[in-house]
Parts: sequence; C-alpha cells; structure tokens
Amino acid sequence: MNSLRARIYHQMNPMDWEGPGMSPVNSTVLTLVIASVVIAVLQSEPVIDSSVPTLFFLLNGTFAAIFTIEYGVRIWAMGVDPRYRGLSGAIRYSRSVVSLLDIVATLALWIDVLFGVPGMYGVMLRLARALRILSLMQNSRMGTAIRLLRRAVRDRTMELSLSFLLAFVVLIVAATFLFLAEGDVQPEAFGSILRAMWWAMATLTTVGYGDVYPVTILGKFLAGLVAMTSIAIIAMPTGIMAAAFSDAFQELKRDHAVGGNAATEI
Amino acid sequence: MNSLRARIYHQMNPMDWEGPGMSPVNSTVLTLVIASVVIAVLQSEPVIDSSVPTLFFLLNGTFAAIFTIEYGVRIWAMGVDPRYRGLSGAIRYSRSVVSLLDIVATLALWIDVLFGVPGMYGVMLRLARALRILSLMQNSRMGTAIRLLRRAVRDRTMELSLSFLLAFVVLIVAATFLFLAEGDVQPEAFGSILRAMWWAMATLTTVGYGDVYPVTILGKFLAGLVAMTSIAIIAMPTGIMAAAFSDAFQELKRDHAVGGNAATEI
Amino acid sequence: MNSLRARIYHQMNPMDWEGPGMSPVNSTVLTLVIASVVIAVLQSEPVIDSSVPTLFFLLNGTFAAIFTIEYGVRIWAMGVDPRYRGLSGAIRYSRSVVSLLDIVATLALWIDVLFGVPGMYGVMLRLARALRILSLMQNSRMGTAIRLLRRAVRDRTMELSLSFLLAFVVLIVAATFLFLAEGDVQPEAFGSILRAMWWAMATLTTVGYGDVYPVTILGKFLAGLVAMTSIAIIAMPTGIMAAAFSDAFQELKRDHAVGGNAATEI
Amino acid sequence: MNSLRARIYHQMNPMDWEGPGMSPVNSTVLTLVIASVVIAVLQSEPVIDSSVPTLFFLLNGTFAAIFTIEYGVRIWAMGVDPRYRGLSGAIRYSRSVVSLLDIVATLALWIDVLFGVPGMYGVMLRLARALRILSLMQNSRMGTAIRLLRRAVRDRTMELSLSFLLAFVVLIVAATFLFLAEGDVQPEAFGSILRAMWWAMATLTTVGYGDVYPVTILGKFLAGLVAMTSIAIIAMPTGIMAAAFSDAFQELKRDHAVGGNAATEI
Repeated sequence: MNSLRARIYHQMNPMDWEGPGMSPVNSTVLTLVIASVVIAVLQSEPVIDSSVPTLFFLLNGTFAAIFTIEYGVRIWAMGVDPRYRGLSGAIRYSRSVVSLLDIVATLALWIDVLFGVPGMYGVMLRLARALRILSLMQNSRMGTAIRLLRRAVRDRTMELSLSFLLAFVVLIVAATFLFLAEGDVQPEAFGSILRAMWWAMATLTTVGYGDVYPVTILGKFLAGLVAMTSIAIIAMPTGIMAAAFSDAFQELKRDHAVGGNAATEI
Repeated sequence: MNSLRARIYHQMNPMDWEGPGMSPVNSTVLTLVIASVVIAVLQSEPVIDSSVPTLFFLLNGTFAAIFTIEYGVRIWAMGVDPRYRGLSGAIRYSRSVVSLLDIVATLALWIDVLFGVPGMYGVMLRLARALRILSLMQNSRMGTAIRLLRRAVRDRTMELSLSFLLAFVVLIVAATFLFLAEGDVQPEAFGSILRAMWWAMATLTTVGYGDVYPVTILGKFLAGLVAMTSIAIIAMPTGIMAAAFSDAFQELKRDHAVGGNAATEI
Repeated sequence: MNSLRARIYHQMNPMDWEGPGMSPVNSTVLTLVIASVVIAVLQSEPVIDSSVPTLFFLLNGTFAAIFTIEYGVRIWAMGVDPRYRGLSGAIRYSRSVVSLLDIVATLALWIDVLFGVPGMYGVMLRLARALRILSLMQNSRMGTAIRLLRRAVRDRTMELSLSFLLAFVVLIVAATFLFLAEGDVQPEAFGSILRAMWWAMATLTTVGYGDVYPVTILGKFLAGLVAMTSIAIIAMPTGIMAAAFSDAFQELKRDHAVGGNAATEI
Repeated sequence: MNSLRARIYHQMNPMDWEGPGMSPVNSTVLTLVIASVVIAVLQSEPVIDSSVPTLFFLLNGTFAAIFTIEYGVRIWAMGVDPRYRGLSGAIRYSRSVVSLLDIVATLALWIDVLFGVPGMYGVMLRLARALRILSLMQNSRMGTAIRLLRRAVRDRTMELSLSFLLAFVVLIVAATFLFLAEGDVQPEAFGSILRAMWWAMATLTTVGYGDVYPVTILGKFLAGLVAMTSIAIIAMPTGIMAAAFSDAFQELKRDHAVGGNAATEI
C-alpha cells in the first residue's frame, strides 16, 4: 500500500518524475483541467448553454467529483514527503497556496453544480493550476523553454518594469495634451485627463479602436506625435526582450557545453 | 533517350541541380504556378470574371493541360532515381505527399475547367507546391535564406509555441474579465467568454477593428490593462525571433569560416 | 544645526546617498509628487471634481504648502555644497533648471489653489521632476536599469533619429500618393497632402483608427503598400533598440566582471 | 577662376568634403529642398493655398530660379572631375541619374510656376535628392549611421525579402479563407479573394481600420487565426532587423578597433 502511495507521489510531483515530459497522472489531470476550462468557456455562451444544459450539468458534476477525489488522493500521497507526514503534515499542506487554489477552484465548481451559480470565476484558478504543473516539468523541451522564458524575463524585470513605467508616464502626458486640445470640442471623449487616457491607451498600444479620435488640427497634430511615440513604446520592451532572450540562449548553450546536470540548475 | 530523361530529372530535382538558382524547367513551372494563382485570385472577382469569362476558361484549360503533362513527365523522369524505378517505383512516387498535392491541385483545376466549379480551393495547394520548389533551391542566396529562417524558427519552436500558448491563456483571461465587466451592458459583444474572445483577440494582437469595445469605466480600465499586455504578447515572440536569427546568423558565419561544404548541411 | 543641514543634504541629493535605493526624504517627496499627479488627473474629471470640490481644494493647498516648504529646505540644505554656499550660492542654485522646474510647478499649484485656475499644466513638470529623482538613484537595481536604458538609447541616438527621419519621409510620400489617388473622391479626408498625412500617420504606426480609409481600388492598393511598409517602419527602430540593449547588457556584464566601481561610471 | 570652380566642386561633392558634416553649400541646398517640400505640402491644402496664393507663386518662382542656377553651377563645377571635363563631359554628367532627377524636379517646379499645374509630383524627386546628399556625408555621425543602416539592410536583403514574400503568401491564404467564409454574407467586402485582400492586409499588418470585419462565427474564428499570424508576420522582419543591426554594430566596433580608415570602407 505504501508502495502505491510512493508511486502516486512520484507521479504527482513533477519535480520528482524522472521520465520524459509529464507523468501519466499529471497528463490526465492537466487534460481534465483544460477540458473544464473549455467547458466553462462554452457554458458561458447562452446559445450553447441553453441548448444542452443537462450535458454541462453532468460534465461539471463529473469534473467536480474527479477534482475532489484528486485532491483527496493528492493530500494522502503528499504524506510521503517528510514535511507533509501525518495529520499535522496534511493540514500544513492544505494551507499551502497550491492547495488553497485547488480547494477554491473545486468549491467554485461544486457551487456551480449544486446551486446553478456560474463557476467561470474558477476558470482562471484552474488555468493557473494547469500552468504551474506545466512549468515544473523536468526532462522535457517544454519545461526547458519555460525556464528559459522565465529566466529571460526575470533577469530583465527591472528594465521591463521601467519601460512600462515610462509608457505610463507617456500615457498621462499624451492624455493631458489631448485633453487640452480636444477637451472643449469633444467633452465626452476628451473632457478630462482620465477620459483622454482611454484614447491615449488605444493609440500608444496601436490598438486604435477608432471609437474616439481627435478632430481639431491641433489635436490631430498632437495625436500624430503620440502615435509616433507608440513605436518607441513598443520598440523598448521588444528590444529588451530580444536582448534578454539572446543572453539567456547563450547562457543555456554554455551550460550545456560545460556539463549535463547544469541544465537542472536553471 | 535515357540521357534526356536524366537531364530532365536533373532539371526537376532542385537538390540535384548544380547551377546557380533554379533550373530552367523549375523556373518555368514556378512561373506557371504563380500565374495560375494570380488567375485564380482574379477569377474569384465577379466583376473581372464576368467581363472576360472565356479568357479564364482558356487560361485554366491551358494550365490544366500543362500541369497534367508536367506531372506525366515528372513521374517518368523520377524513374532515374533507383527508389522510383519501374512501374512499382512510379506507383510509390505517385503516393508521396508531393505527388498527391500535384494530383489534387491538377484535378481541382480540371474540375474548374470541365464543370465550372470554382477551383480556387487548389490555390493553397499550388502555393505550397511553389514554396516547396523554392525552399529546396541549392547554390542560391534565396535558398540559403530559406534554410536560415527555417533553422531559426525550428531551433526555437518550443519557445515560440510557449509564447503563443501564453498568449492564448491571456486571451481567455482577458475575455473572462471583459465578459464579467461588460456582459450585462453589451450582451451582443460581451455576453459570453466566447463572444468576448473576438474583442480580446482584436485587442491583444493590436488589430483593434473597433466594431466592439468596452463602454463602462470598469470595462475600459480592464481593456487598458489588456492592451498594455498586448505589448508583451508581441514583444515575446519578436524577442525570441530576434535572438534566434542572431544565433542562426552567427552559426552560418562560423560555418562559412570553417569550410565551404558545411553550408549544405544546414 | 549644521549637522542636521548636512544630513538633509545627504538625504536630498540622490548622488550623495549611500544607502540602498532612495533616501527616506526623497521617497516621501517622490510619493507626494506622484500623489499630486494622481490628484490632478482625477480633478480634471468634472464628475469627480464636482462631487468632492473641497477635498481637492484642501489636498492641493496641502501639496502647495508642502512643496513650498520642501523648496525652502532644499535651497537651505544645498548650502552644504561649496558651489551653492551663502546667499549668492542660493541665488545660483535657484536659477538652475531643476530649481526653476520646482518654482514653476509650485506656482502653478498655488495659482490653482488661490484663483481656481486648473493647475494640471504643472502635471508634466512634476512628473519630469519625479523621474529626475528616480534616474539619479545610486545603489539600486532601478537606478542601474535607468542608466542602462539611457545608455542604450544614447549610444544609438543617431540611428534612431535616422529611422524616425525615414519614417517621416515615408509619411510624406504615402500621404502624397493617397492624396493623388483619393483626393477627388474624399476631399475631406484626402483633399491635400496635409490632410492625407492624418491617414498616413494612423496607417504607418498601425494605429488604424478607421475614421478615414481609401475607397477606390487604386487607393486601396497604395494603402496596402503603405501598410506593408509600416512593418518596416516598426521593425527598424525595434531592431536598433534590440541591438543596442544587447550591446549595453554585455558591456554592463563586462564592467561587473572587471571591477565593482566600474558600474558607477555608467 | 579655376580655384573658385575647384572650391565649389569640393563643396558640392559630399564625398570630397573633408570638414565635419555637410559643406555650407550642400547644407544650403538641402535646407532649400526641404523648404520646397514643405511648401509643396502646404500648397496642396486648398484652405492654405487660397488664402495666400501669391506667396506660394513667389516662393515657387524663387525656388525654381535657385534650383536652375544651382544646376548650372553644379554642371560647371563638375568639370573639375576628369570624367566630366569639357562639353562632352557636361553632356555625360547631365545624363546621369542624379542630374536627370534634378532636371525633372526643376522642370516640374517651372511648370507649376508658369502654368499653374500643381508641381507636387516633384516632391518625391526632391526628397530623393535631399536623402542622396545626406547619405553621402563623410566625417559625420549621421553619415556613419546611414551607412550602418544601409549595410544592415543590404546584408539581410534576402531574408527580409523572404519574410515579405511569406507575408504575401499568408495574405493570399488569409484572403481565400475569409472569402470562403464570408463571401456570401458580405459580398461587398469579401465577395472575392481580391476584395478580401483589403481586409487581410489591414489585419496582417495590425492596422485594423474596422471598415470591414467578419460577422459569421466561422469568419471570426478564421480572422482570429489570421490575427494571431500577424504577430509572426511582424516578429519575423523585426527579428531579422535586430540581428542584422546587432551584427553591423559589432563589425563597426571591430573596424574602429582595427584602424581608423576602415570606417570609410563601409
């Protein structure tokens, strides 16, 4: 029995799994999580939901049951880890962030099933969960790629934050200019810095919905300057990312050249 | 006779052609394929099609005849290759992916000519065919460039897939937020996560058609955050690409420095 | 007393502060500046302003008083620096750009408080001030990041200017083409090169509001070419930025490898 | 006299000018060319043109006279160069591309002045001329930057062309898909591959005017895929550019480290 418990533990802990990619148990759980997300997305659509309501009820009930059982098995299997041994260990595990995520997501699903309150609020939690399992994968190209991306972003967090801070300053300055230029002509869209920020945001990110745009000559001239600035706003983080990835790729290559087990240190 | 067959084989197989760029036969075939694509594009336009219908009929008939003859010649010339010798070899070749592409594209053209059923479904197949011939070019700057691009993309497939996976997760999260914020006010555009995904897609790729956009303050605030995220969504694959190209260029340069025939290994 | 003055000087001069990050005094000033910017943004919104007018009056009055006192303390503390010693030194300091920024921003706030004239014109000045304090931070990751970004941009100023110059040339050429193609059909939007520049700007930066767009076949064809060019317009500065950051990161790494105090030379 | 001629030749030939930046004569000519472009842009605007028609008439007359004199002086000064000595040399020079550009641009201006036919068709020619003078500058940071950009683009012309070719293939494929999905519902916008290309172009470049967009579920799904692809369409040339600039910067640095005159070989 203990052997089964240890085996399930090895299957459930991605850091502990020595085979390539994900363990069968985690693959199954991940597939179910993705399936439940897809179901939640489909169910939120009234046309689909009203045509097959019982199907969604049954599917969500099944998901809720499976996730509840999975949680029970997980807390039992975690007892293999000395930190989570015995009842006090189980309680300690149940209070970890991952466990709380599990509990809330499963509860949201049960509330959906039992009381008909839409459970799509749990969608993001389940996605976070699915991504966490993915990111901890060992011995797989995907796991290496995740660590590479994370490393590149983490190494340059400060520069990326700074470029977003700068973008925010430009956003406020742009909104102020357009408020001054167009505030009187289009009070609905540019009647305050706050309102003009909606336009500034759409312009600086080059989304450009076109629901609001300047109509005066001064406003158009300033908008042209802001739009030109948008190129810099996009070029800066992209350039930082490019340099960071270039860096991270080269370090990875050097690590591989030095020795095999260095890769696990990433 | 066998000498002509061998010469045609050398002309048709881009890997076997030793001259610079494409062989005359392949250049002609490529030109015809591109011409047939242009014709299909023009023919799909009713204004153009109705003004010169006979012209298109004749052109497509000619193309169909040429591509049929070309296919016959190709299967005959392929017999030079030991793998495709004799009738059994011809049958083996005819079942290869390239050959099936040829057959389907040519059949689509014949159906168009004989029964008037628009053959533009064959457009993509013919384009794929044209690109395949291009990508196999030896001894040409274009061929080297294609292998360089392919290498850069292939080396970082996992990282690029991951950044698209992340973009998809952000898409669902963004759609869920906007569905919660705007679902009641604009049920047509944001009445379900599925519907909100159309908006989220347009925003995260910075396309921003402007057919749907949030109108509430909370919706606009969340949309602003999503639009800001779009910069990261674009910056990530661009940065990966930049680093991958930088890498591939340097490897290419090293290969050239080491020896000439290393280039063919790309 | 002199000891207090020296301590305040050390706290106020970011170049002189030896602790990590910002000094407590500068952190407080920065927080207040950011708060006053947020207040100015909120106050510009009529709906918010009219609901709590006295609150904004009191807040702005407090900010004006604090910034006035801060300025007095600063000019007094600057006397520790030999350059700004005595009355003549205080006058010399008060005529520096930073000091004039402070005076104008504080005056704008007082005019707002006393005469009810909106003081949001001072918003940009205060932001500039806040960013200046930030950028001079020593011994902090943020300060290093700022110097890195500044270095990357400064090293490639000429190339970036050139790419913006090129973008401007393309803008005029694009506007001329569309003016010739659409000027007669849509005189309001494309009736002159100047008018067509609004469209060209929105297209080349990929903002694409959609308030104006070509309707003739020639206009759409030319617009397609212009839109294709927009990719190059964005790719050029982004590529320059990426290379510049890559360069600056590597120099930074080399500096760190050589010696610790090299970092202060950035 | 000959001394004056040689001095003017040295002033007019940017490759021959040994001072920093541009020679006084070329600076003046460039300023006039830019001024004439600005005038042409302003004159095309009916509101401005009708308010001060005589001013534009006089300005254009002055420009036409100056450019005519400048051309005469240039052809005379070019006689210093052995290639362009004597009458036969002057005729040879007058048939060079640069000279023909000059003649056409000046003629366009004279036609505008004398017959009132708008001369803005000469705008592009004059801009090309101005950029040519700029690009030949020696001993200046701008000249170095121009050669750097040109080198980076030229080194990767094939890869950049290829990424644009790929973008064009995606454009046709995207247009074909949307034509099949939306052709019947929105015949005006998607009734042929040709018509759908306008939408595909706006989407793939992320301009997104919003004048046409899919309305069916299948159309929106396909449009979402196309929009996702647009990220790759932008990421590819940007990545190539970034790698090319990174390369060109490093070569430039190496050149500077090796010797001073290597820079002129760029």
